[in-house]
Amino acid sequence: MRKFFGLAIVGAIMVGMVGLTNADFARPADAIAYRQAVMRVIGHHFGLIGAVVKGEKPFDPKDVAHHADIVAALSQLPWEAFLVPGTAEKSQMKEDALRKKEDFRAAAGETEQQAAKLARAAAGGNLGEIRSHFGGTAGSCKACHDVYRSR
Amino acid sequence: MRKFFGLAIVGAIMVGMVGLTNADFARPADAIAYRQAVMRVIGHHFGLIGAVVKGEKPFDPKDVAHHADIVAALSQLPWEAFLVPGTAEKSQMKEDALRKKEDFRAAAGETEQQAAKLARAAAGGNLGEIRSHFGGTAGSCKACHDVYRSR
Repeated sequence: MRKFFGLAIVGAIMVGMVGLTNADFARPADAIAYRQAVMRVIGHHFGLIGAVVKGEKPFDPKDVAHHADIVAALSQLPWEAFLVPGTAEKSQMKEDALRKKEDFRAAAGETEQQAAKLARAAAGGNLGEIRSHFGGTAGSCKACHDVYRSR
Repeated sequence: MRKFFGLAIVGAIMVGMVGLTNADFARPADAIAYRQAVMRVIGHHFGLIGAVVKGEKPFDPKDVAHHADIVAALSQLPWEAFLVPGTAEKSQMKEDALRKKEDFRAAAGETEQQAAKLARAAAGGNLGEIRSHFGGTAGSCKACHDVYRSR
């Protein structure tokens, strides 16, 4: 049986001072492993939406909405883990993320916003809108990677 | 600024036939990497609740509710990735998970239920109840690990 409960995003309702801080990672390696794990899960679900958007997989609206919810929810998690001192050396992250934290947070926030729009489009079930916001989200990923990730 | 949007769980509302299947992993290695990533994220947030429950960190109800929401939401994700053929050899998973899929799914479902109870307790903000359901969730993790994970 394929059973699944829903993940839902509390749209744009900011709940305030909650979330991870640098202090929640005992060692830099923990922060790197955590953020890489979040990115891997996001990448998997985002890739499955991509396969639909590119016409490689049939469009199942419920499935796409589910994957988009996960992408949007997880897009809120990893950013502070990037801002832990000492985590640029042993990862693909450029030191610039740590040097320009507010710029990094702004770029990350843009990805959160794009992913939230994708999730709303996916909930609506219109493939054209999903495609458009998939592109917007992918663009926000790339914009951040271009600046803060080494090849 | 520590900004965070809420993750919320649609309690016990089963949305039905949605979720990952074996076919969503191109290679066994992808399924292993995916499930390990989900488990790492769960483990991080669960560990932060554990630190509060053990008195190592002060009790901030909003923080604990946030971590518990993430644990409950992510507890719904990884199970089918364990049931991809060819993924026992190169991981800690015992072949028994693949041989006894329904037993595995039942054990996984128990963890989902326990994590949902923990999230509800955390939303309520009573540390005694949180401690109790933290223990229940930890027990369900261990029960599954004892049977399906090699040391």
